[in-house]
Amino acid sequence: MSKTINFGIIGAGYMGKAYSIALNTVASVFPLSANPVLGILADEIPDVVEAKAKAYGFQRRTTNWRDLINDPAVDVVAVCTPTFLHEEMAKAAVAAGKHVICEKPLSLNARNASAMADAAEKAGVKTMVGYCYAKNPAAQLAKEMITAGEIGDIIHFRGTHNEDFLMDPEAPVSWRLKEALASKAGALSDLASHIINMAHYLCGPIADVVADSQIIHKSRPDGKGGRAAVENDDQTNLIVHFASGALGSIEASRVAAGRKMGLTYEVVGTRGTLYFDQEAMAELQVYKGSDPAARCGFQRILIGPAHPDYGSFCLGTGHGIGYNDMITIEMRDMIEGVAGNRAVWPSFRDAVHTALVVDAALRSQAERRWVGIGELETELK
Amino acid sequence: MSKTINFGIIGAGYMGKAYSIALNTVASVFPLSANPVLGILADEIPDVVEAKAKAYGFQRRTTNWRDLINDPAVDVVAVCTPTFLHEEMAKAAVAAGKHVICEKPLSLNARNASAMADAAEKAGVKTMVGYCYAKNPAAQLAKEMITAGEIGDIIHFRGTHNEDFLMDPEAPVSWRLKEALASKAGALSDLASHIINMAHYLCGPIADVVADSQIIHKSRPDGKGGRAAVENDDQTNLIVHFASGALGSIEASRVAAGRKMGLTYEVVGTRGTLYFDQEAMAELQVYKGSDPAARCGFQRILIGPAHPDYGSFCLGTGHGIGYNDMITIEMRDMIEGVAGNRAVWPSFRDAVHTALVVDAALRSQAERRWVGIGELETELK
Amino acid sequence: MSKTINFGIIGAGYMGKAYSIALNTVASVFPLSANPVLGILADEIPDVVEAKAKAYGFQRRTTNWRDLINDPAVDVVAVCTPTFLHEEMAKAAVAAGKHVICEKPLSLNARNASAMADAAEKAGVKTMVGYCYAKNPAAQLAKEMITAGEIGDIIHFRGTHNEDFLMDPEAPVSWRLKEALASKAGALSDLASHIINMAHYLCGPIADVVADSQIIHKSRPDGKGGRAAVENDDQTNLIVHFASGALGSIEASRVAAGRKMGLTYEVVGTRGTLYFDQEAMAELQVYKGSDPAARCGFQRILIGPAHPDYGSFCLGTGHGIGYNDMITIEMRDMIEGVAGNRAVWPSFRDAVHTALVVDAALRSQAERRWVGIGELETELK
Amino acid sequence: MSKTINFGIIGAGYMGKAYSIALNTVASVFPLSANPVLGILADEIPDVVEAKAKAYGFQRRTTNWRDLINDPAVDVVAVCTPTFLHEEMAKAAVAAGKHVICEKPLSLNARNASAMADAAEKAGVKTMVGYCYAKNPAAQLAKEMITAGEIGDIIHFRGTHNEDFLMDPEAPVSWRLKEALASKAGALSDLASHIINMAHYLCGPIADVVADSQIIHKSRPDGKGGRAAVENDDQTNLIVHFASGALGSIEASRVAAGRKMGLTYEVVGTRGTLYFDQEAMAELQVYKGSDPAARCGFQRILIGPAHPDYGSFCLGTGHGIGYNDMITIEMRDMIEGVAGNRAVWPSFRDAVHTALVVDAALRSQAERRWVGIGELETELK
Repeated sequence: MSKTINFGIIGAGYMGKAYSIALNTVASVFPLSANPVLGILADEIPDVVEAKAKAYGFQRRTTNWRDLINDPAVDVVAVCTPTFLHEEMAKAAVAAGKHVICEKPLSLNARNASAMADAAEKAGVKTMVGYCYAKNPAAQLAKEMITAGEIGDIIHFRGTHNEDFLMDPEAPVSWRLKEALASKAGALSDLASHIINMAHYLCGPIADVVADSQIIHKSRPDGKGGRAAVENDDQTNLIVHFASGALGSIEASRVAAGRKMGLTYEVVGTRGTLYFDQEAMAELQVYKGSDPAARCGFQRILIGPAHPDYGSFCLGTGHGIGYNDMITIEMRDMIEGVAGNRAVWPSFRDAVHTALVVDAALRSQAERRWVGIGELETELK
Repeated sequence: MSKTINFGIIGAGYMGKAYSIALNTVASVFPLSANPVLGILADEIPDVVEAKAKAYGFQRRTTNWRDLINDPAVDVVAVCTPTFLHEEMAKAAVAAGKHVICEKPLSLNARNASAMADAAEKAGVKTMVGYCYAKNPAAQLAKEMITAGEIGDIIHFRGTHNEDFLMDPEAPVSWRLKEALASKAGALSDLASHIINMAHYLCGPIADVVADSQIIHKSRPDGKGGRAAVENDDQTNLIVHFASGALGSIEASRVAAGRKMGLTYEVVGTRGTLYFDQEAMAELQVYKGSDPAARCGFQRILIGPAHPDYGSFCLGTGHGIGYNDMITIEMRDMIEGVAGNRAVWPSFRDAVHTALVVDAALRSQAERRWVGIGELETELK
Repeated sequence: MSKTINFGIIGAGYMGKAYSIALNTVASVFPLSANPVLGILADEIPDVVEAKAKAYGFQRRTTNWRDLINDPAVDVVAVCTPTFLHEEMAKAAVAAGKHVICEKPLSLNARNASAMADAAEKAGVKTMVGYCYAKNPAAQLAKEMITAGEIGDIIHFRGTHNEDFLMDPEAPVSWRLKEALASKAGALSDLASHIINMAHYLCGPIADVVADSQIIHKSRPDGKGGRAAVENDDQTNLIVHFASGALGSIEASRVAAGRKMGLTYEVVGTRGTLYFDQEAMAELQVYKGSDPAARCGFQRILIGPAHPDYGSFCLGTGHGIGYNDMITIEMRDMIEGVAGNRAVWPSFRDAVHTALVVDAALRSQAERRWVGIGELETELK
Repeated sequence: MSKTINFGIIGAGYMGKAYSIALNTVASVFPLSANPVLGILADEIPDVVEAKAKAYGFQRRTTNWRDLINDPAVDVVAVCTPTFLHEEMAKAAVAAGKHVICEKPLSLNARNASAMADAAEKAGVKTMVGYCYAKNPAAQLAKEMITAGEIGDIIHFRGTHNEDFLMDPEAPVSWRLKEALASKAGALSDLASHIINMAHYLCGPIADVVADSQIIHKSRPDGKGGRAAVENDDQTNLIVHFASGALGSIEASRVAAGRKMGLTYEVVGTRGTLYFDQEAMAELQVYKGSDPAARCGFQRILIGPAHPDYGSFCLGTGHGIGYNDMITIEMRDMIEGVAGNRAVWPSFRDAVHTALVVDAALRSQAERRWVGIGELETELK
């Protein structure tokens, strides 16, 4: 364990903090092949980067992200910036031979995402995209049960990612609501991408899509006394077919009153069903079709040391796991991927699928028709 | 209250029993403008009709439903038979000047449903369709809150009606799985119709639809040692737009492992959200957007005497209301409609809308496109 | 089934209505050895008894309960009056050779309850006390699982019966709050008696008790512009030992803000646990200790036709059962007991045990010590 | 922030790991007056202490805890060892002028706990006892609401701490089951102490107690092929009076099948109720008595940045907080207490109250009577 992996993080905001907490924690939680070092933090606001670098324990700081990428000590670059910046930063990082963790969504569209994956593969570096909810031990348990055939063949998936941080029509506009900064897809890209990635993880790739989205509040305060247009959707609904033949629905909203972290999924198989709700993140509801009629019902499995990764945090079942713990698992995966030269999931390439589904949903909405993922894949070539 | 209303029920099975229980109960529960009389029960199996007529307290019985319809004492005919029989029976009843309660779905398709509504209106009789879940005091409370603007403007509806009575691939075929007896729509007609009616009740009419459905188990035991084809869908998904502009999704399944009475709805407004699950039928979950951030969250309102109709059953909040109580409310509505010459809801005409949505979903699936309800309405003329 | 059983009900209030609904319903729900007849209703308020007798379908009515008891047509007398009247009415009824259903609590104290049981046994009539929650199919399922050893040996019972109908300090005084009319025990007698009966049903007799109770609001409006003293407890707590050796706790309150029908029980065995909450009355939560660590958790069993009595109400699991349905089961038990000359549960004798536990709790509180049930039993002799 | 606080941890097991994770995390989460340094780890097993010190990032390690206490660099000693060792270690630490965090329960009995508090106060050092569940933002919110009078005057408290880690009768004996190592109190000391501390925190001191406890499995495998006696209780029940006059019940078990982290509390006030369950640790259920009858019910408040401490971990409500996050809050409290020379809660002195309640419960059980806390306090003098 004398090996170390040096991390540079671009962006000292929400996710930059989460990554820093996780990197400070991960070595005490998990046995690691190499210890992470908090090398350098980049943020364009001098006061912020100085204060945060100190608080998080970074060795160095910079207001110029290119310095971070060019820093020879850095092994892994973490891109925790608004979406429109991902492509340039990630490409520069892989060009400099760095491994990259990039926040979700990977890019503004599938074309850019695909180019990023190409660049990373050409450079031979490891990549990961921050779909953290799939790292939850409960999600890993769901995956394990599905893979083991415990619920039979998957026939239906229903996923949601509903929040209400924009339910107030007077909440100000931000980069997330602008096409140029966050894409033509709003909740569809920012939130649905999480549950599309989860669908992919649990049920395999999606084959075709029909969708519709809406902007509920057309304009919002621009923070300068005026109003600015909202340029992407507040809520969206998709029907999907998986390549496996299973049917599914996906829903996302940023104006869903009362839903704070409403990432939920119900996976129906021919022999059972799984249900999960991120607002009760340390449990999985399971229905086993083999139980007799008089003794059947959904079972609330509290996650514990008998399930993936939990026992490294705590030896007591049901004692609880939190948001930052999922990020810690992500960092473990990245470290082990880099140190062990193993595959990391979800890579940029894996995330292209999510981007394709988002793009297919946009096209479906524009053209009011079913859109095959294959159609978009062909266009990428 | 010396006035009485004489009921004839066709079909001594599941729903015939439920109606009989309710008619025996309703006068003790509600103040009524007229007392119901259990006049005559019809069922083609002699032993069954004899035993059941006695048990339920009918004055007369018959194995020939036409005798019931021609019985001059009968005021109201209840049609509790498989779907394909509804049209003939209901038309005969209205032709004989009887008021009619018909089980859902009203008919095999919107065209027939519309003809039934025309016939009833021409005859000047009252009609009702047995969408009993909308009679739940919790649903009435939801309607009341929406109408009063308590959750603002409706922007999203998600409804499901999932059960698992056919999850076993070796469960035998029945009339419900046959196109000629139950329509080309399976779960879409048998189950989704309930939640479509609820959507209509709570959010107004649906304007257009995209849908897909699947048969999971293509054949089943025919009960004679062989196999018979399953001719309509096991599961279905719709995206809908309401005439109001709200977006919605609807899902139904008869193979959804673990869901026993999974009629759920979540109605999102600009200022709050309602959530209901029929498996916890005596409560409504409410989120009020006006609560301060530190004191907000979904509130579990247990239904009680402060809400519609509950107090007639029981004076204690949360003491519980059951399936048959909803049927009792239905019977009260029918009796008061007939005795008071007031409108009854949902009438045959109201139910045509549900049938149109089902037909639009079938066409959407066949033609892989969005289908407007207006398109089908035009064709009916 | 030409046999009939003629019922006379004393008291046209809350429970009188519930019994009437149930008697009107029971023959359509259950196959019966004899059909009930609503013979005569007694209530001292002329207008009330007239209106209610008509609404409920009674053949006769009276303002003098002794007329009812002396009515030769009456087979079963139902006593639905305030507690202080039970003893006189029930004794008169059994003296007249009538079978008796009496509302809970059976009497003001164990001595009177015992005298009532003696009188009934001497008269050779059937008796039942209205502990309706024990008739819930979910409670029957709990009993069935315990008896079958599915949770091993019972080691702990925790029961509550919490409501909040008196949380408002300005709610007026009523007979329930007066020692002479309802006993020295308030919530302890009115509410805890339900959960004590349930404890007895599920875990066997209680052997000794320590308890404490409190009056929270010492006086209340007397309805005449003044204040009246509250003479019995608003909340109570007991620790009990069962004869089996199991430990338990019992709690009741009529001022428990937010609990509307908070009858809950958790029965812990050496191999599993059952949990029930009357506010979700159609389900039982079960933990099976034999499940493997990675697949264990409480299972929510929705009550259905695979469980006792439910299928007679409805063929669909989870479709729901309500308060009045439990009363219907009670009436079925009474009818079958009388018609079939079978034992009825809980009889007056069974209810003496509940009364003894209440009296022991009162004495424990007064003398600040553990009190054995045997001590009180000895004094009764 | 150039100030640092140097920690020495005795015990590299469960809690030693939790403390280490927290100390590695706390500076990234909270703004701090001083940064913690992981100075030295002590554990008597050489291999363990070497591996763990490396993994957790300690500068030094030792197999002799006295070296740690005598290390001049160490500012704070954390005692994470079995209960019987707490007194000697903590006294040695305070004698060396160190601040001390000690795991719960503080000592084998109230006399020893009191002596520890005396020693610490004499030495003028800061102390804290690891009742981590009271650090949960949800518990802090409960405290805040109670203090603000949001639920009126407290009239009832019901608390449980149920787990099932010893439900298997063949689970081997451990130090926790031995009187000399863990006290005559089993679940009463190990588990109930958590909920007694919580009761103290939320409702003030307890005045008197009646209790009973049981050993369910009298002997267990001794790990050497034989059997060893279990010397303290598996389950316990208390009724308590608070000094305020409120009534309460407390229950704990280590054999409660299915309860994994069943620390629950329900605090009833004259104007509302709070309910919490650690198995759903990031939410608080609240009933406000001021809501109108038709719009009342328990509200599920998901903990978020509007509540104490949560926002430092994550900006999204309902995104989740875990067990280790509570420990991080504990460490923040200790650091700020030491660095800022502010009071730390719960101190050794605060924890003497919990120890007195445990001792009173033991005496109540032995003598089958109510025992006043004052009686035991007098004996300590």
